[in-house]
Amino acid sequence: MSFIVQKYGGSSVADLERVRHVAFRVKQYWELGHQLVVVVSAMGKTTDQLLHMAFEVHPRPPERELDMLLATGEQISVSLLSITLDALGIDSISLTGGQAGIITSDFYTRAKILRIHSARIRSHLAEGKVVIVAGFQGKTSNEDITTLGRGGSDATACALAAALGADFCEIFTDVNGVFTADPRIVSQARKIHRISYDEMAEMASLGARVLQLRAVDFSQKYGVRVHVRSTFSEEEGTWVEEVDTMEEVKVRAITHSRDLVKVVLLGVPNEPGVAARIFKVLAENMVSVDMIIQSEGSEAQNQKDFAFVVSKEDERKTRGALSDLGRVLLFQGQKFDDSVTRVSVVGVGIMSDSSIAHRIFRILGKCGINIDMISTSNLRISCLIPAERMEDAVRALHGEFLEDEEVTLNEDF
Amino acid sequence: MSFIVQKYGGSSVADLERVRHVAFRVKQYWELGHQLVVVVSAMGKTTDQLLHMAFEVHPRPPERELDMLLATGEQISVSLLSITLDALGIDSISLTGGQAGIITSDFYTRAKILRIHSARIRSHLAEGKVVIVAGFQGKTSNEDITTLGRGGSDATACALAAALGADFCEIFTDVNGVFTADPRIVSQARKIHRISYDEMAEMASLGARVLQLRAVDFSQKYGVRVHVRSTFSEEEGTWVEEVDTMEEVKVRAITHSRDLVKVVLLGVPNEPGVAARIFKVLAENMVSVDMIIQSEGSEAQNQKDFAFVVSKEDERKTRGALSDLGRVLLFQGQKFDDSVTRVSVVGVGIMSDSSIAHRIFRILGKCGINIDMISTSNLRISCLIPAERMEDAVRALHGEFLEDEEVTLNEDF
Repeated sequence: MSFIVQKYGGSSVADLERVRHVAFRVKQYWELGHQLVVVVSAMGKTTDQLLHMAFEVHPRPPERELDMLLATGEQISVSLLSITLDALGIDSISLTGGQAGIITSDFYTRAKILRIHSARIRSHLAEGKVVIVAGFQGKTSNEDITTLGRGGSDATACALAAALGADFCEIFTDVNGVFTADPRIVSQARKIHRISYDEMAEMASLGARVLQLRAVDFSQKYGVRVHVRSTFSEEEGTWVEEVDTMEEVKVRAITHSRDLVKVVLLGVPNEPGVAARIFKVLAENMVSVDMIIQSEGSEAQNQKDFAFVVSKEDERKTRGALSDLGRVLLFQGQKFDDSVTRVSVVGVGIMSDSSIAHRIFRILGKCGINIDMISTSNLRISCLIPAERMEDAVRALHGEFLEDEEVTLNEDF
Repeated sequence: MSFIVQKYGGSSVADLERVRHVAFRVKQYWELGHQLVVVVSAMGKTTDQLLHMAFEVHPRPPERELDMLLATGEQISVSLLSITLDALGIDSISLTGGQAGIITSDFYTRAKILRIHSARIRSHLAEGKVVIVAGFQGKTSNEDITTLGRGGSDATACALAAALGADFCEIFTDVNGVFTADPRIVSQARKIHRISYDEMAEMASLGARVLQLRAVDFSQKYGVRVHVRSTFSEEEGTWVEEVDTMEEVKVRAITHSRDLVKVVLLGVPNEPGVAARIFKVLAENMVSVDMIIQSEGSEAQNQKDFAFVVSKEDERKTRGALSDLGRVLLFQGQKFDDSVTRVSVVGVGIMSDSSIAHRIFRILGKCGINIDMISTSNLRISCLIPAERMEDAVRALHGEFLEDEEVTLNEDF
């Protein structure tokens, strides 16, 4: 018997048939005597529909009111799941984020979880109930409803698992776990059985959508073991946990992200402090930036070019930031290019083995794929390449690093 | 400048276009400098859709969870109205029933308002904001979400007006006020400009749908003046308020209700305490009963028949109650007849003037309309008649009592 926090995403509760399926899964666990806290997202496209209504009446809806509106999505799915469980004879109670004691900052639409008052959940568990908590939301200390932003339901689940001291947290999604590459692109992609928090965090930030970065950070900070698995299969998924890092450097996975825009600032004055000013304005506008490159520029005109990558989602904010920037800094022009993808090779200590970078560049070169920008960390090497070559690159890199494991292992020994 | 609580019903906010229309109405008041608390119902058919989902997964959904589900309907409409007002440059804040401080009993799906903590609303009003409150809902002292049952949004508005000491409460609906009869049936029906709480309460309980009974009771208890008027017109509506009752007895209106079922219990044993047992079981099953008739019955068999009227909505509960009753009382059979309507003549002190009853029976007799049952109070005389004669009866009674006012007044003097 374990104490488990489970999370079911929007696609797992997309319609009443799927809600029933989730109820049956919960029932399986419940019949085994597990204590269960179940975090649920809004049904399928509900959040998008609510957003659509808000933007129909206002080009930029006030964020407090947007959260008031969006939070109804999860409130509907938790109550429906509780009603469905009752029909199966299982005693449960649904709670909004606020009722569950999730206290957040008042940074509406992307609030941070500050603390969790877990008394109410604990008392319902003690009554023998399955406790169903609305994901993605909380309340301020002022009783206002907040939402946690993208991936908020994963964060809710991992934070609750940490606060309640659950044995582990299960993230139910529409894939069987974390793979060495996207199986829709690479047929030889394999499921990863265990992965470290660091590697998972890197993969999440690089576009692997199975588990959100904030949730990984929470889990790592509080030592919550996370099991990522499919709602629609009984198969074991991927365990995210502390992995002994004394082992050899090893490539874990090839990831890619499509939804990127490369931004180039042309003719930026070549003065000290210029980069600081650019990225200060971007940060003030809540734009996350990756892969910054500063060109040599033309000495004659005392100008240089800056290039960086932002997510497509942030494109509008970026354009706003650049118009703000135009007021403090004279630059000659800007270019936006969304025909790029980022392909990354992920693994702990990957930069400490210089042969890996070498092999990446060699294999991409062999395929005739032009590398536009490169960025690295101790956990990954990322290359910006033309979007139309992404699949080729992922397949080639997977073949190079992950398909001949026996041989790689032999080499290691 | 007044302090006004307004309520807009579901048909007034049925879609985004109508929400915008309500926002413009609010703006008109706001520009005149009024302080405004705006109570809003769920958009159009939202509540029905949510109920439908719940009943798809459960024949009898747990009521706490049903309230959790249904309360989202108003949460959506208040946040959308606030967003729309912002687009018009008006500062507002939306509040759930719980956030607005509406504390109720935990009698889910038909909770009673116990008290209102008005501090939060007052402080937002002091900030110059329009305060938008979700109708139909509140929370228990335990932070659980409740709904107030049918007509709950009217009750929310009148209770808030009482608690806040508003100058008056405006109920915006899809008709221009309270009429002497349904204008769709009687073309000569006139709008009533002022009506007493007692008369309004009687009309509400008799099926006039403009203002719910609970709201009238609240308003009377706390002396809140209520203005019932149309969302879609600038016209003055009907004021519900304390009316000097020293004036002459006067017929106010002719009302009718269609959604009734006449229930007959056949061959009930003629023993003392039998009626008490029957109506105890009905009360335990939450069935409201009107127009009870006990037949003389057959002396030989020592049996009698009982007839009474329930609302169509309560038919299912009534059938349940009668099967419960079968266990404690032997009766020979039951009949349900939904081909009946109740037509009522309403006015303060109506039974104190015996000529009115006489005139009712005479006029219905002249029309050849058979009266099946009669019930009376100091405020009304009701007759159960065949449904297909309802319109004739309403027109004839309206003609008799309300279309020749000058003459009637002359007779009184």
